[in-house]
Order: sequence, then C-alpha cells, then structure tokens
Amino acid sequence: MQRGDEALQNIKILHIGLGPLGQKIIKYISERKGLETIGAVDTDPEKAGKDIGEICSLGKNLGIRVSSDPASAMAGKKPDAVLLTTVSSLEKLACQVEEIAGYGLNIVSTCEELSFPWGVQTELALKLDGIAKKHNIAILGTGVNPGFLMDYLPIVLTGVCQEVKSIKVSRIQDASFRRIPFKKKIGAGLTLEEFNEKCKQGALRHVGLTESIHMIADRMKWKLDGAEDIITPVVAAEDTISGETVIQAGTILGVQQIGKGYINGEEKITLVFRASIGEKNPADTIEIKGLPDITSTIPGGVNGDVATCAITINAVRSITGLPAGLKTMVDLPVTAFFSE
Amino acid sequence: MQRGDEALQNIKILHIGLGPLGQKIIKYISERKGLETIGAVDTDPEKAGKDIGEICSLGKNLGIRVSSDPASAMAGKKPDAVLLTTVSSLEKLACQVEEIAGYGLNIVSTCEELSFPWGVQTELALKLDGIAKKHNIAILGTGVNPGFLMDYLPIVLTGVCQEVKSIKVSRIQDASFRRIPFKKKIGAGLTLEEFNEKCKQGALRHVGLTESIHMIADRMKWKLDGAEDIITPVVAAEDTISGETVIQAGTILGVQQIGKGYINGEEKITLVFRASIGEKNPADTIEIKGLPDITSTIPGGVNGDVATCAITINAVRSITGLPAGLKTMVDLPVTAFFSE
Repeated sequence: MQRGDEALQNIKILHIGLGPLGQKIIKYISERKGLETIGAVDTDPEKAGKDIGEICSLGKNLGIRVSSDPASAMAGKKPDAVLLTTVSSLEKLACQVEEIAGYGLNIVSTCEELSFPWGVQTELALKLDGIAKKHNIAILGTGVNPGFLMDYLPIVLTGVCQEVKSIKVSRIQDASFRRIPFKKKIGAGLTLEEFNEKCKQGALRHVGLTESIHMIADRMKWKLDGAEDIITPVVAAEDTISGETVIQAGTILGVQQIGKGYINGEEKITLVFRASIGEKNPADTIEIKGLPDITSTIPGGVNGDVATCAITINAVRSITGLPAGLKTMVDLPVTAFFSE
Repeated sequence: MQRGDEALQNIKILHIGLGPLGQKIIKYISERKGLETIGAVDTDPEKAGKDIGEICSLGKNLGIRVSSDPASAMAGKKPDAVLLTTVSSLEKLACQVEEIAGYGLNIVSTCEELSFPWGVQTELALKLDGIAKKHNIAILGTGVNPGFLMDYLPIVLTGVCQEVKSIKVSRIQDASFRRIPFKKKIGAGLTLEEFNEKCKQGALRHVGLTESIHMIADRMKWKLDGAEDIITPVVAAEDTISGETVIQAGTILGVQQIGKGYINGEEKITLVFRASIGEKNPADTIEIKGLPDITSTIPGGVNGDVATCAITINAVRSITGLPAGLKTMVDLPVTAFFSE
C-alpha cells in the first residue's frame, strides 16, 4: 500500500449460510489473496461437522468444519466480518442479524431486501440501524441486482451530471443457455395460465426492484410519491428452441418485471428486468436524461452468479472502519476488486 | 430524506479561482437546488469588486462581489466547502491549500495532479494529508478525467469481479465539432515538426493519466513496478475537413496519449486517450479481463466540460462528515447528482 491506511493482514471471514451462494463465496475466497475463511455456520444437520471443502466441492479439505452456531465456529478467533447468505426475507434475517451483532461482528449479506430497506421496510431498517449502533458494527446488504447494476452503477454515473431528469435501467438476459433451474425460475415453458398462477403465488417475482428505486431516489434526494412493480409474461410468438425442448407458440419464454418511481406523477425512474429464452440483444443498459445525457451499455450483461458472490466479498473491505450503522452501497468507499 | 442523516440546509460554497471552470461552476450552482454560493475569490484586479453574475455572464447580478482573499469573501459566513479552481500544478496548489486549510474549510479542487498524488508526488501528498489532519478538514481532487472516466468508473466496475487480470480504458473523442481552443490544444492543423516541438514543451500533454493508473493500482492493491505515458500524433492520411478549414494529408489531426501500468513486466493497466478531427467512433470504453470479463461503453463519450464542473459540485456532499485527510474519489461515499 502506498497510502499506509490499510493493514496488510488477511481479512478474516466467518460464513453463515452454506447454500449455493455461501458455497460459491467460500470457493471464491479460497482462490483469492488478502482474504481468509476462519469458520462456517449452517443449521442443516447434514452439513454439521463436515469440512467446508467437501461441502463446497472443492476437491480438497480446508481444515474448517461446519459449526451449528457462530461461537463454536469462531473458536476464539475474531473475524473482520460475517458473510450472511441465508434468507431473502428481511424479517427473518433481522433475528439472525441480532444474534450476530451480539458478537460485535460486521455483517455483509446477500439478502435482497437488505440492499435498501429504507422507504420499503423503514421500521425494520430503523431497528437494524439501532442494533448496528448499539453493537458498534456496520451492516450491509449487497449483490449484483439489487446492489449494483440497477441502482449503484446508475447512481455512480449521475456523478458527472449537472442535471438528471430521469433514469432508465434495463437488464435483459437471454435464458437460452442458462441452467434448467433458472429457466424454471423465469417460467419458461409454462402456459399463460400456469404463469399467472405462479405469479399470484409470488414465485416469479424478482426481489429488489423496489429497493433499487428507493436507493436511487434517496441518493438523488428525490422524494417519490409512488412506486410500482409490474410483472408480465414474455409469450412465444412462434415455436422456439430451448436446449433440447421446444417452447410452443403462445406459451411462456420468460418474465419481464418493470419497476417505476414517480415524482408529482412523472415517471422519473424506470427499471426493466427481463429474462427469457431467445432474447436477441442481452445487455445491461443505463440511460440518463439530463445534462449531459449518458447512455452506458454492457453488451451481454454481467453474469449474475459470479457478480453477486464477488461483490459480497469485495464489499468486506469497504465496510471496515466505518461509523456504526445500517449501510447501503452508496454510503461506502468504492467497492472494488482487490488482491494483495 | 428518508434516512435523516443529512441536513436539509443548503450546502454553502466559497469559490476560489474564477477562470472558465470556476465561472461555469458558479453558473451551474446558480441553477441548482441544495447548494448556495456564499462568496468568490480571484486575484485578478480586473475582476475584483465585480458581481459574480457579471463575471460569469449570467445576465443578472447575484449580489456577491469578487474578493481578493477568503476572509473578506466569507464576511463572517462559514462555507461547507471551498471549490478551488486555480492551477494544474500540485506544487503551486499546495500553498493555496495551506492558506485555505487555516480557515478550517473542506476543499474540492479540479487540480488534475490532486486527483491521486500518491505514488506520483507522494511527498506532496503526505504534506497535504498532514495539513488536512492538522486543520481537521477533507481535501479532494476530482474531475471527469482524471477523477472519473478513466479511473473511478473502471474501479467501480471491478466491484463485481472475482478476478481482474487487466484493465483497459479508452476515451476517444472526435474534435471536429469542438471549439477552436480545443482543436489548438490537441495540435490539430500543425505540421509534424510543430507537433513534436509542442510536445517537447509539454504543451500537448493531458495531465492525469499517470494519476489514474496509480488510483486504479492502489485500489486493486496492485504494486506497480513501472508506468509509462506516451504521446503520439494522429496524422491525417488524406485531406480532412475541419469546420471551415482543411487539414492537409500528412499534417496533424490530433493527439493520442497512452498510459501503461506494469506488474512484473506485464501490462495490467492501459489507458488510451485520443482526441482528433474526424474520429469515427468516439466513445468511452472500459474493458476488464477477469472473472467475469466486462466491457462497458458510453457511445459518444461524456462531455468533459459539463462533467468536470458537475462532479466537482456533486462531490461536495460526499466529502462532508468524513474523517480528516487527503481523500481521493475511491475513499468517498458515492458522488452522485442530487437535487432537493
């Protein structure tokens, strides 16, 4: 370090939650310099006592066994942060956060609803902020979306604007080459009736558009008087090949979800999230109308799985040394890749 | 504000340096909400005592007269920050910073060499950091380039990367429709001999590529073992129309400057800055090789004059409330547009 403001020691991580995301994060940390896994917690009795290298299919043991609670996972060592990859519901997460906070540990979580709970679940946000301050820790929710592509990155781009009239962000994904669970998640192959039924159950909803809208509005100091979140099906106009099956004309290729934020009835923020089989131009695109107008495109879009794990790891450095409280991405020094 | 962590009062600004950039910043602040000019300083006797509305050609007076020193410009009011738009040389700026710091005022400057002096002019950086801490203020250098497009923005994009092997940033500008001073600045219309002579004098050099390279490397925790900054002419292959004149084949259309940062002899950072008459595809492009690869493009590129003034204004909010010291863009909560 040229600036001497950061320790050269490894950042020590305790993992809580060893689902697919938690496993991938452990794998990633094992491949990096500057970070170190010191313990792992999961409540699944099937995982208890097993080496995390085995749980994460690393092909080798890492010498760390899965514990059922943080105290025994730490075994006297103090991590710099907990990576919490358990639930998507903020209400469920809050209890877990409260327990971890009791150990005085900073928390970075992939919980979508934690990315920007202010204005969406403000009471819970206040509660978590209070917990963080009481225990002198920082708490952050992050991920690729919400947490980066459709909120943080457009906010960053407004930094060179003298005026912003409106912001539109589109994340368009071609699901043709994605794994089957992803295709199912977006409703590919369903009939319109099945799609609508799944929609009612909330099973097709991408969590986070509303949080992203509120993050943008908050940072711009825009006072929203309304927000919407609309899900519609992407219907096949013709028979469409998807891997080894065919999605018939009239059935579902995928899902589109549009979030809108209004001020005085005017649409100021528009977020379009679409994932379907056979999308022609997959891309992440930001369009700012203002002074100057700015259009920014990432052709092909950013791979979501890789990106969410990476930003969760990269954020650990940015939350250390901050004043205590519930943080969001806009409150931190820039979250960047690093490698000693 | 939903989060109650920021005052609703206007941010009060003292301007020091009323050249073209300082004038445009005053104009921009006069058009915005949430910010307020409370005083202005310039050493030019021609400007002394005149209303800043007249100096900045606003077509109206703003009730603030140009002072020759900060104390009389403040007239008992305490600004939240000084916007310092005077010189490009950090050595010259340091004396001005020292004087302003004596009043306990945060400073945001457009001085290119201040954007990331660590590793480039480390002794001066240490001196300024000491001054800032002694007087309990934050000091920041920013702008569109250096300060955003070729350093901060690529750093932001690495936030979703598990690995970064190399970073290339290109800022390609078509000077065809720019004003004559800009065309002169890039050497358009010169003979090759004249170009080389101007190069020797340092008159064609864009200041900041080296600073940008060091900002990127520092944030990645990459230890550079070398950096280069190479200027070459863009020569007209055929007669090329530029406004009402013709640039003859064999003479100069503009300038290209390439900055490179090496680790163990490997080129890890490449910055290409080119401005010339008749560029076919002007754009700001970031290419990250890693996991995942990310390419991001802003077609047409970001207008530099607007953007530098805007980011200087927007940064004021981000430096308030920070621990004292010499800051760089990567140390701040995200710099974004805002409007009450």
